[in-house]
Amino acid sequence: MNNVGPAAETRSRPPFYRPTGDEVKVFHAAARRGLPVLIKGPTGCGKTRFVEAMAHELGRELITVAGHEDMTSADLVGRFLLKGAETVWVDGPLTRAVRQGAIFYLDEVVEARQDTTVVIHPIADHRRELPVDRLGTTLSAAPGFQLVISYNPGYQSVLKNLKESTRQRFVAITLDFPPAVTETEVVAREADVDIEIADALVTLGNAIRHLDASPLREVSSTRMLILAGGLVAGGLSLRSAVQSAVVEVLSDDPDVIRALGELVDAVLPTR
Amino acid sequence: MNNVGPAAETRSRPPFYRPTGDEVKVFHAAARRGLPVLIKGPTGCGKTRFVEAMAHELGRELITVAGHEDMTSADLVGRFLLKGAETVWVDGPLTRAVRQGAIFYLDEVVEARQDTTVVIHPIADHRRELPVDRLGTTLSAAPGFQLVISYNPGYQSVLKNLKESTRQRFVAITLDFPPAVTETEVVAREADVDIEIADALVTLGNAIRHLDASPLREVSSTRMLILAGGLVAGGLSLRSAVQSAVVEVLSDDPDVIRALGELVDAVLPTR
Amino acid sequence: MNNVGPAAETRSRPPFYRPTGDEVKVFHAAARRGLPVLIKGPTGCGKTRFVEAMAHELGRELITVAGHEDMTSADLVGRFLLKGAETVWVDGPLTRAVRQGAIFYLDEVVEARQDTTVVIHPIADHRRELPVDRLGTTLSAAPGFQLVISYNPGYQSVLKNLKESTRQRFVAITLDFPPAVTETEVVAREADVDIEIADALVTLGNAIRHLDASPLREVSSTRMLILAGGLVAGGLSLRSAVQSAVVEVLSDDPDVIRALGELVDAVLPTR
Amino acid sequence: MNNVGPAAETRSRPPFYRPTGDEVKVFHAAARRGLPVLIKGPTGCGKTRFVEAMAHELGRELITVAGHEDMTSADLVGRFLLKGAETVWVDGPLTRAVRQGAIFYLDEVVEARQDTTVVIHPIADHRRELPVDRLGTTLSAAPGFQLVISYNPGYQSVLKNLKESTRQRFVAITLDFPPAVTETEVVAREADVDIEIADALVTLGNAIRHLDASPLREVSSTRMLILAGGLVAGGLSLRSAVQSAVVEVLSDDPDVIRALGELVDAVLPTR
Amino acid sequence: MNNVGPAAETRSRPPFYRPTGDEVKVFHAAARRGLPVLIKGPTGCGKTRFVEAMAHELGRELITVAGHEDMTSADLVGRFLLKGAETVWVDGPLTRAVRQGAIFYLDEVVEARQDTTVVIHPIADHRRELPVDRLGTTLSAAPGFQLVISYNPGYQSVLKNLKESTRQRFVAITLDFPPAVTETEVVAREADVDIEIADALVTLGNAIRHLDASPLREVSSTRMLILAGGLVAGGLSLRSAVQSAVVEVLSDDPDVIRALGELVDAVLPTR
Amino acid sequence: MNNVGPAAETRSRPPFYRPTGDEVKVFHAAARRGLPVLIKGPTGCGKTRFVEAMAHELGRELITVAGHEDMTSADLVGRFLLKGAETVWVDGPLTRAVRQGAIFYLDEVVEARQDTTVVIHPIADHRRELPVDRLGTTLSAAPGFQLVISYNPGYQSVLKNLKESTRQRFVAITLDFPPAVTETEVVAREADVDIEIADALVTLGNAIRHLDASPLREVSSTRMLILAGGLVAGGLSLRSAVQSAVVEVLSDDPDVIRALGELVDAVLPTR
Repeated sequence: MNNVGPAAETRSRPPFYRPTGDEVKVFHAAARRGLPVLIKGPTGCGKTRFVEAMAHELGRELITVAGHEDMTSADLVGRFLLKGAETVWVDGPLTRAVRQGAIFYLDEVVEARQDTTVVIHPIADHRRELPVDRLGTTLSAAPGFQLVISYNPGYQSVLKNLKESTRQRFVAITLDFPPAVTETEVVAREADVDIEIADALVTLGNAIRHLDASPLREVSSTRMLILAGGLVAGGLSLRSAVQSAVVEVLSDDPDVIRALGELVDAVLPTR
Repeated sequence: MNNVGPAAETRSRPPFYRPTGDEVKVFHAAARRGLPVLIKGPTGCGKTRFVEAMAHELGRELITVAGHEDMTSADLVGRFLLKGAETVWVDGPLTRAVRQGAIFYLDEVVEARQDTTVVIHPIADHRRELPVDRLGTTLSAAPGFQLVISYNPGYQSVLKNLKESTRQRFVAITLDFPPAVTETEVVAREADVDIEIADALVTLGNAIRHLDASPLREVSSTRMLILAGGLVAGGLSLRSAVQSAVVEVLSDDPDVIRALGELVDAVLPTR
Repeated sequence: MNNVGPAAETRSRPPFYRPTGDEVKVFHAAARRGLPVLIKGPTGCGKTRFVEAMAHELGRELITVAGHEDMTSADLVGRFLLKGAETVWVDGPLTRAVRQGAIFYLDEVVEARQDTTVVIHPIADHRRELPVDRLGTTLSAAPGFQLVISYNPGYQSVLKNLKESTRQRFVAITLDFPPAVTETEVVAREADVDIEIADALVTLGNAIRHLDASPLREVSSTRMLILAGGLVAGGLSLRSAVQSAVVEVLSDDPDVIRALGELVDAVLPTR
Repeated sequence: MNNVGPAAETRSRPPFYRPTGDEVKVFHAAARRGLPVLIKGPTGCGKTRFVEAMAHELGRELITVAGHEDMTSADLVGRFLLKGAETVWVDGPLTRAVRQGAIFYLDEVVEARQDTTVVIHPIADHRRELPVDRLGTTLSAAPGFQLVISYNPGYQSVLKNLKESTRQRFVAITLDFPPAVTETEVVAREADVDIEIADALVTLGNAIRHLDASPLREVSSTRMLILAGGLVAGGLSLRSAVQSAVVEVLSDDPDVIRALGELVDAVLPTR
Repeated sequence: MNNVGPAAETRSRPPFYRPTGDEVKVFHAAARRGLPVLIKGPTGCGKTRFVEAMAHELGRELITVAGHEDMTSADLVGRFLLKGAETVWVDGPLTRAVRQGAIFYLDEVVEARQDTTVVIHPIADHRRELPVDRLGTTLSAAPGFQLVISYNPGYQSVLKNLKESTRQRFVAITLDFPPAVTETEVVAREADVDIEIADALVTLGNAIRHLDASPLREVSSTRMLILAGGLVAGGLSLRSAVQSAVVEVLSDDPDVIRALGELVDAVLPTR
Repeated sequence: MNNVGPAAETRSRPPFYRPTGDEVKVFHAAARRGLPVLIKGPTGCGKTRFVEAMAHELGRELITVAGHEDMTSADLVGRFLLKGAETVWVDGPLTRAVRQGAIFYLDEVVEARQDTTVVIHPIADHRRELPVDRLGTTLSAAPGFQLVISYNPGYQSVLKNLKESTRQRFVAITLDFPPAVTETEVVAREADVDIEIADALVTLGNAIRHLDASPLREVSSTRMLILAGGLVAGGLSLRSAVQSAVVEVLSDDPDVIRALGELVDAVLPTR
């Protein structure tokens, strides 16, 4: 086990997703009608993995972009670039998705700047059109194109919010952390650890999620548990792995870190 | 029913609009005199569809743009773009409308930056002129050109407001959600569902609109009801469709979502 | 009456302006000495029309620009633009006016950014010079050039104010809504309606202007009354025209709209 | 008297300035040593005219620029501009003054952006050097170059202030409105009116300047009085000229305007 | 000892790092799995040196960049630059690291602008991909590539914080100042001073770190102690070296400087 | 004495600096080790002159830049400029210093924008490297290169502060106004006045510095006293010179100016 990063293998196998409600049915119905989907849920609960699984089931390409404060519509649609003495148009990721009939997934949409509205609205409603002003044209979405956006309701604020007129164009799916059995299966598989390690990690994760009066902004996510598992797979002890991938990530406050450490010692006593 | 998106069919048929007041008469009188129109109304009540219907009745092309915080006059008027060794002028959507005598619809005008004022004022008043500074010229609007803008009075704020000197150049039309019979017809037709489904959705929509002391920023719009219908048409149960297209869209607050769900169960008891 | 917009006819006839004080005398004295003029007055009272009339009387061309928040000196003076393999200088509207000896009218000057100061100051005082930094030159104003700016004192604020050092370079003229007889004549002529309709509109306008403890930010302007008349000329009833061009424009508040509607019913009882 | 603007004549005759303290001596001493000068004084008191007179006495060219919020060092130093297929460097006004040994007068320096510091500091102190980064060079000021800046202490604020480290590089001269006899001579000469008219205007100006508990932000400046005189020379009555060039310029508040009008009537009773 | 700066020698010898916990084990486990690492710790405690040591042990190139408020994703990924008549793409430091399989260390990540998110997220998680939008391509990280970021929890604020969704992608390692024996060894070696000088400096450093109710924003860091040692190696007395490299750096407040000076005199009495 | 500015002579003679503490020893020790230096002290106390003297003693070139709010790393490092059909790289002043082994002095560093961090950090610590991203290269500092920055602790604020992680990379030297005897010598020499004039100016300067409960933001600096001396050398009386170079520069408040004038009259009674 001294290969560098499990990237290659991970990506050749189909994404692993276990449904926990009717989210798959809703996604399929929306896909049949070409309706845009908004996925709500906490950080690291598996939103990206769900979209990857849906794209795989539907046999469509998936193009993913993470929203950020400086993202403008040109980042999505494309721009002219100088190459030698010529300017060449380079499609942005949304335009590529529209042309190819791919699923376009804009993660953390509330981070993007408001001028993305101008491209999201007409492509999200019955028009299914992408205006490409710089080319002076409007593209009709190829069959199969579907717009998916996500955000974390816990991060909503007055300044960063999805405009109501944007939000109302979407069908919403709410995700949460999966039930323990499912999450254990996910952690074992993604982190390349045996089921006992995964079970211990999920037990710990749930203990942290159910803390009363928690001082944490976020709880332990499935993603964190997979990272902890990965450190174990990389040769670290379970206790050290949890400290680095969960405890130190959840807080910078020495008191909180100490309290979390004690909780970890209680939940993972004999290891 | 496994086609991907109903876009193509929808757009070949004439837009479906049922008048609910004298809005059609006002629009026609304004159109006869070339006067600009301001449409006020809540999100998703059918402002865009009304403009589409008017354009169809008048036999004029419709060019629609959604306003956004970064929109400047150049986004409306056009700009020079480098192509190969040459620069080519590309008309913006407003300039295209002015040349062709089309109806130009600027949705959510209060989002646009103030420098759009410089193009809106002279094209909106008796001058009917569009200054195109970059070309060093001024275009006279072709016969048939009409400027239409819209905004949602509920979103007005000190920071984002229509300047009085802009507003006073327009004739105002106020729209609201249509009466139940009309809305049912709209939902059935647009979502491709039978009249019983549409009726149930509209009954639910009105129940939500008339909640006392509602904690919601927005109520259930016609657009949401059409999306819910679309999910039903896509194979989902009515209850799940309402959950995804209405309840989860209206709020992120678990208590509010639960209360809305109970209201839905009461209004749609036997399905 | 199915022509599209009265633009063409309106502009071939001379601008219609009725003096209400010594504003014409002041303008002529300033014009004789080349002194810059500042016009103060509420939105829609006829500031633009006054300037148009003065330009016509003096036989000079009029170039009008509306100030806005993003307006910089380059928008007034001009810029280099790429055309093919060459860059071409394109005069801005102020530079054109300076070269041709035209009247340059900058509407809503307080909206423009402060860097316009650098061009307004030397062209407004005894120097009558326009520095064109990008060309590395300074233009002397042709005979006949006159700078006119306007603003609405009601919009003044700490953030948007005419700098004292700018303001003191100008001769000020204050305009207000014209007396009823004059305004009636203006409305009838501009809206293409008979004198009875115009009289009813002006009577209504003055009733709104003299409301005690008015909740309105603006009162009914001459411009609004002309728009209402235009809707009547376009085939709408007087009551509907007033509702669309005056009542719905003055407020978004349902209570205020209702109260205004009752006032309209009282003032226009038998129509 | 139907010429358009007195610009041409005004500039061929030497600037008219009457000293009121030792400002001329200080300026000459500074000029002998090449020391930079800061002129402080209210708007319209004659700062620009003083500098014009000094430049004339010293036989040096004067280059004047008005500071503004968007002014950067490039506006002072110069920039490359595209012309055809070539880029050409165009000296900014400060660079021209440095090369020619001219007096460079930066009016309202506190309006300029802080990056002007980088060029003002080395040219203002013993180095007398202008770094021209874009050319990768540093220019030594030609003999005769002198930097003069001005500001109005009444406008100082926390946000717009001269940095102490800049201010301490200058010799300061404070100007104020001139004594009545001098000011009368200035007004008569600059406005082209007889001495009685000028005397009446100066009497009025001083009456306004000495109002107790004045609600005015600014008082009547010499510049205003010259403008009023210019209107009289243009054919207007003295009372109307004062109303337009002084009263309406000093305030937008109807009560203040009325009170000022009564003061004017009292001071200019029999005209 | 009159060479200019010890740079050349320092860099040919391997970085000197003494582990103080299991930070080396965690880093190695993360490196084996290609997992990204977040290093937390106070300014000057040796974060950079730790990463240098890890890169050396793993035999990988290290590319280091300091985050700053204006850093955008283009600063990390690269941009097109004009050279002669051609535009040439220049890889940014992150892209170079991705291509070469180097360790990329982004110091003070919270300073960078949020649009860096778009490149950090996909390269940090299982995808190990760097989207290079300007080239219209996505690079897969070469084996050996590892992303390391650091920040100082003491500087966290509402405005400058690591987004939770970013933070959860990392394994965290917390560093602090090393124990006295280790720190003495580090200071002696890095500053080129004998062990007694180093011991005195570390004793002083710890005295300052353990002040009760300290008014200091920061305490004396290992970096400061090395700088003080360097001044001694450069010929300065120990007391003067401490004054310049520690006391005057820790505060600008004369009272605090005096108190620190007294503490120094007490700790270093006989020198 | 009618030459224009003493610039040429001043610069051919070696800079005049009288040590007042161990600042010279500290600077030399830092120079021997290539350590970066931070100079703290009030405006006009001689920081620049100290650096000039050190550069002269060490026989190194000095390149000085004044920090400002809009300064970015490109202003320090360099940029590509279009010249004719080609783009040419132009080194910024820091890059020139790094290549030539010069002392680079960045005055008022806290004014610069934070992205300068990215170039200051690696050049300031043991790496002694300047990343030149636009060239895709990293320069090693030539022997003799030394980074010197300065700031005025009295101007520190929450918004404009030296980041701790930057500050800790420097050795700090605190300067203040020199003792009277030294300052008299400096003033006499720099202003070209005899020792009695210089003595009177320094006596006055110290009287102002020691005012109780002073309302002044700054006190009289050595620079101001030199400017006052320069005016005397230019032919002005001592009293007038002090008024222009000290009193009017220290305040805009008429009461403060009057009180300072009385102090001046008391200190300089018989002149």
